Amino acid sequence: MPNLNLISEYKSFGGKLGFYSHLSSSCNGEMRFAIYRPPQATQQPVPILYFLSGLTCTEENFMVKAGGMQRFAAEYGLIIVAPDTSPRNTGIPGEDDDWDFGTGAGFYIDATEEPWCQYYQMYSYVVHELPALITANFPARSDKQGIFGHSMGGHGALVCAMRNPQLYKSVSAFAPITAPMRCPWGQKIFSGYLGSDRQSWNAYDASELVKKVGYHSSILIDQGTADKFLAEQLMPEVFEQACADVNQPLNLRYQEGYDHSYYFISTFIEDHIRHHAIALGSN
Amino acid sequence: MPNLNLISEYKSFGGKLGFYSHLSSSCNGEMRFAIYRPPQATQQPVPILYFLSGLTCTEENFMVKAGGMQRFAAEYGLIIVAPDTSPRNTGIPGEDDDWDFGTGAGFYIDATEEPWCQYYQMYSYVVHELPALITANFPARSDKQGIFGHSMGGHGALVCAMRNPQLYKSVSAFAPITAPMRCPWGQKIFSGYLGSDRQSWNAYDASELVKKVGYHSSILIDQGTADKFLAEQLMPEVFEQACADVNQPLNLRYQEGYDHSYYFISTFIEDHIRHHAIALGSN
Repeated sequence: MPNLNLISEYKSFGGKLGFYSHLSSSCNGEMRFAIYRPPQATQQPVPILYFLSGLTCTEENFMVKAGGMQRFAAEYGLIIVAPDTSPRNTGIPGEDDDWDFGTGAGFYIDATEEPWCQYYQMYSYVVHELPALITANFPARSDKQGIFGHSMGGHGALVCAMRNPQLYKSVSAFAPITAPMRCPWGQKIFSGYLGSDRQSWNAYDASELVKKVGYHSSILIDQGTADKFLAEQLMPEVFEQACADVNQPLNLRYQEGYDHSYYFISTFIEDHIRHHAIALGSN
Repeated sequence: MPNLNLISEYKSFGGKLGFYSHLSSSCNGEMRFAIYRPPQATQQPVPILYFLSGLTCTEENFMVKAGGMQRFAAEYGLIIVAPDTSPRNTGIPGEDDDWDFGTGAGFYIDATEEPWCQYYQMYSYVVHELPALITANFPARSDKQGIFGHSMGGHGALVCAMRNPQLYKSVSAFAPITAPMRCPWGQKIFSGYLGSDRQSWNAYDASELVKKVGYHSSILIDQGTADKFLAEQLMPEVFEQACADVNQPLNLRYQEGYDHSYYFISTFIEDHIRHHAIALGSN
């Protein structure tokens, strides 16, 4: 794998978990990702499930904290790929100043504003560059992809899936930011990366997108009722209404007493992986 | 719970994960622990399983990284308690200088050498003070306790169990330090905390203890073959021979290709929890 640099590798549930870096043309610099290959991948190409993480995370969080999700990836024979959440060390002044803007906050969009647009092309990276790299280097079936994520990454998963329904057979999310044009996190990010023309924001807002393009299958969302970001930042009720308006199938589950943490994700990770495994014919 | 300070709490697999601090009389200062209470604990007292962590860990590592072990604690109805690995901020000069001595390296022994003996009483803390605190404040059955751990904590679990077979109905370990008198980690710790009289070291060496006192039931140990500490620090073959010498039942499983990390622990955590659940009558 001449274009990939293996940073570390671990055996896990009979499969292999690897952390890689590579030069990204989309992001104009080094990017990192983690990939879990189940035991089945030594025999034949298997479906792929992409997980997009939330603000401040790296490619590592999901692999460490998601409640042994490798157990279910191994059970269902799925490759799981978790990219980093932004470019890093670009040299853009102030990139590390805020936890919800710049480093760790790529938001899975292609920036158009200077200086961010030179590096922050996370939408293109996640939808095009990374999958091409994965299928070129690992026993992965490019015709069987699903995508899911948490918080900012839940937003990313919904947007990537709805804009590319042919590329993703299934989508789900944990506590996603579902109406970023209406919440402080989204407004700060969109203003900075996309500028003040709110028309351009629509392409990255799940609640706007679903009304325009919908999605070919049911969307699974889990949302904790004790999540401190629920009312101000996540707004699942906006997305729920938008889905209802266009008869988009949605399985929005409010989970009583759960918060925004990986303990919440761990509790329901099996359901999500099974949701994707069924859509990917891997159950 | 007037003697306990709740730091944070999370819902997890239908139960509750709490992080607490309290003033420890054994350790002469603040100590921390994490406790997972399964859903069953809201109905009746349940058995308890203590997990002792390895060098550099805190009370948090096992709860975050152990592959969703809360899933199995909830399935079998077990409380899981994970203490911190040493006193902290004692003011002893140099306590933070080494990663394998002092802070994060309590080694689950009662120090006798100055100045460590004033604070480092982790054996008494784990075996006596902490269980008394747990059973006084949580719906836990003091007559049904098991203990397990990783690396330094695997050593701790073996020593605590063999010295107190009436207190612990079951014991298991991941990659334990099994012959600390013979390995660099153990020799450094024993010299510092117990002094140069090697006779006093015997009481904290699993391979010596098993020959003297044995254990009332089979000991489960998982050990990765790709563990970089295997030959120099862990020495399971010494413990295996000692067990064989006294006909102590031992299920030592070498796991091909696994290393010393929590990815290894995650992979086999279900087996260990089941091992304890059976002994505790909770399966």
